[in-house]
Amino acid sequence: MTSDGSRTPVLTLLTPGQTIGVLGGGQLGRMLAMAAARLGLRVHVYDPDPRCPAADVAAELTQAPFEDGAAMARFAASVNAITFEWESVPTAALSALHAAPPIRPPVHAVNVLQDRLAEKRFLTELGLRTAPFEAVDSPEQLAPALARIGYPAILKTRRFGYDGRGQVRLDGPHRIDSAVALVATQPCVLEGFVAFEREVSVVAARCVRGNRACYEPGESAHEDGILRTTRVPAQLGDEQARAARRAAELVLDALDYVGVLGVEFFVTEGGLLVNEVAPRVHNSGHWTEAACHVDQFEQHIRAVAGWPLGDPRRHSDVTMRNLIGDDVHGWPAYLSSPHAALHVYGKRDVRPGRKMGHVNFIGERSTASPRPES
Amino acid sequence: MTSDGSRTPVLTLLTPGQTIGVLGGGQLGRMLAMAAARLGLRVHVYDPDPRCPAADVAAELTQAPFEDGAAMARFAASVNAITFEWESVPTAALSALHAAPPIRPPVHAVNVLQDRLAEKRFLTELGLRTAPFEAVDSPEQLAPALARIGYPAILKTRRFGYDGRGQVRLDGPHRIDSAVALVATQPCVLEGFVAFEREVSVVAARCVRGNRACYEPGESAHEDGILRTTRVPAQLGDEQARAARRAAELVLDALDYVGVLGVEFFVTEGGLLVNEVAPRVHNSGHWTEAACHVDQFEQHIRAVAGWPLGDPRRHSDVTMRNLIGDDVHGWPAYLSSPHAALHVYGKRDVRPGRKMGHVNFIGERSTASPRPES
Repeated sequence: MTSDGSRTPVLTLLTPGQTIGVLGGGQLGRMLAMAAARLGLRVHVYDPDPRCPAADVAAELTQAPFEDGAAMARFAASVNAITFEWESVPTAALSALHAAPPIRPPVHAVNVLQDRLAEKRFLTELGLRTAPFEAVDSPEQLAPALARIGYPAILKTRRFGYDGRGQVRLDGPHRIDSAVALVATQPCVLEGFVAFEREVSVVAARCVRGNRACYEPGESAHEDGILRTTRVPAQLGDEQARAARRAAELVLDALDYVGVLGVEFFVTEGGLLVNEVAPRVHNSGHWTEAACHVDQFEQHIRAVAGWPLGDPRRHSDVTMRNLIGDDVHGWPAYLSSPHAALHVYGKRDVRPGRKMGHVNFIGERSTASPRPES
Repeated sequence: MTSDGSRTPVLTLLTPGQTIGVLGGGQLGRMLAMAAARLGLRVHVYDPDPRCPAADVAAELTQAPFEDGAAMARFAASVNAITFEWESVPTAALSALHAAPPIRPPVHAVNVLQDRLAEKRFLTELGLRTAPFEAVDSPEQLAPALARIGYPAILKTRRFGYDGRGQVRLDGPHRIDSAVALVATQPCVLEGFVAFEREVSVVAARCVRGNRACYEPGESAHEDGILRTTRVPAQLGDEQARAARRAAELVLDALDYVGVLGVEFFVTEGGLLVNEVAPRVHNSGHWTEAACHVDQFEQHIRAVAGWPLGDPRRHSDVTMRNLIGDDVHGWPAYLSSPHAALHVYGKRDVRPGRKMGHVNFIGERSTASPRPES
C-alpha cells in the first residue's frame, strides 16, 4: 500500500544487463553508476550538463533540462527503472510519464520529503520529535511565527534546501529584512533553534519486499552548513543508537520506501530530534564505502533493481572527510597514507565550497559489529 | 635503466582530471576504468568492439582495430599515459608511436613476457626455476625436443596463449599430429609436464620510483585451463610464500617494471617453479577487491599514474570464484549471501567458457596480516 494510493507497488526485478536511469549526474550519481556497473547493470544518466561527473562512468547520457518533458519521456522509455541522486527531482514530471518503469524511491515519498513543512508534519505524525516549527507562507506570517517560536530561530525555504543555502538564521530582530526577502520569494518554514550536543545520522535502506537494512549511526561535523566529517562509531549511547535506527525504520515503512535514505538527527539533552530526511544516498554515508562489505551505493542499486539488500554491518572504525574546494589538492598526501582511501569525483573546476571528493580514514578493525563467522 | 636501453624512463606524474588510455576493453579494462574513476582520472578505452565491457564505464572509447596505426596515434596523442589489459598488446605499434605518453608497463617488459620462450629464458637467467623447456620453431624440431624433454609434455605456442588455447598435451605419441599441426602455424615451445601439488600466484606491483608492493600468494584451481577459484591464504609454508614474493620482486626489478603483474607458480615436491608471468592485472588477483583496502586495479592505476603504491595487506580470508558461462545465472543466490561480494562484467552474451563475473566469498577477518593500528 502506498501512502497516497496513487501508484500500486510494482515488484519489478531487474536482471544484470538491464539499465537503471539515474536523474542527476553529480558525485552521487557517479558513485551509483559505478556500483551498478559492478553488479552488471547499465546506467543511463540524465543531466543538463554533458560534463557532469557521472557522464564519465555511465553507459549512456541524456543531456537535457529536467523540465524537457519529451526528453524525459524518451529517457523513461529507454530504462528499466528510474532513480535519482537528489531530493529536488521533478516529481510532477515523473508522475506525468506514461508507461514509466518503476521509480525508486517512490514519488509519493519524495513529495513528502522535498517539502520541509510536509516532512516535519509527517515526522511529527509518526511520533518522532523535531525542532519546533511554524509554516511561514508569506512575509506577513513571519512575525506571528517568530512570536510563537522565539529567538533564536532559522527560516528555511520549504523546498530545495541544500548545504545551507536558502536559510536565514535569526538571533534577534536585526536580520528580519533578509528573512522577509527570503519568504517573499517562496514559502518557508520557521524552525526553533536547537541547542544540540552533536549531530548524528543513520543511512538506511528498504527493499521492494519491505526488508530493511540500517547502517550504524555516524557522527557528523558541519562547517558553514556543509558536511566536513562523519565519524563511526558515533559518540552515542546504545539506547540512543537504537532510537536512531528505530526512527529510520519507522520512516522507511511509513513511506513504503524503496532505496536508501539518510536521516539526520540532533542529539540534545532531551534526546534525539530529527533534523531532516533525504530520500537518496547521503554524504554522511560515504564511510560505508571503506568500512562495510556492501556500501550505501550498492545498497541503493540493489533496492532499485528489486534485489535483496546486502549486509550493512561495519568491519572497521572509520572517519570520512569531505574534500571541499582546494582540499582536493591534498590528494598526494592521502595517496601516501596507508590509512586513507581517496575518492575524487572528477569535477572539472575546483570552486570554494564545492565537494570535490572525500577520504575515508580507516582505523582499527571493529569489535563492535563483527562479520558473521564463515 | 631499462633492460633494452631503448627508452629512458619518464617519471611523468598524472594529476586527477587527466586521462589514462587503456588498450583493451574486456573485464580487466572495465575494472581498471572504475578504479581510475574513483581516483578522479578519466579513462579512454581502445577496443575494436563498441559494446566491449569497459565501454559502459569509460569516459571515451576509440573503436578501431589494434592494427589501425592512425587511430592508435590519435588515441596516444589524446591521453596522458597508456596501459593495457592483456599481454598480446601490439608492442611494435606502440613503439612506433611518435610523441607517445608513458606506456606502463614498459614495452620492453611486455616484449619479453608475451613470448613464452623469451620469458622462460629470462626467468632462467634470473635464477628462477621453470618447467624444462625446448624451443620448437618448426615441425622438424618437435621430435628432437621430445627426445630431450620426454613424455608427458605440453607444446604451447610462443605467443598469445590464453585460457588453455594454443596448447597440445602429449602423454605419448598419439597426439603428435595435433602438435605438428600447431607448430606448423607458429613457433612453439615444448614444456616438460610438471607434477605439482598445487598452483599459487603472486600479484605484485612496482611504481615509477622502484618501490614494490606484493599481495599475499593466492592458491588457484583451474579447470579445462581456465581459472575457477583463488583462495587466500594459500596452503603454503612461510618459506615458500617468501620465495614466491621474492621471485615476483626479482621479476619486477629486472624488468624495470611499472604496474601490476601476476606470477603463477607450480608448487612441487622440489620447490616452486614459475609457470608464467602476465604483465597486467590478473584474474588470480580479483580477491584483492574484497580483502584489501587497495585492490590490484587501484594499485595498477596508481603505478600507471606515477603515484605511490597502496598498502597491499589483506584484512580478511577470501575465496574468489569465477563465474564462467552459465554460472552467472546464479547471481540471485550470491546477492542473498552476506559472505558473497558479486561482480558481474556486463557482457551481452553468455557463452560457455566465457568469464562473465566473479564472486568473492569473504571469510573470517584475518589475524595473519593485520592493518596497522591507527
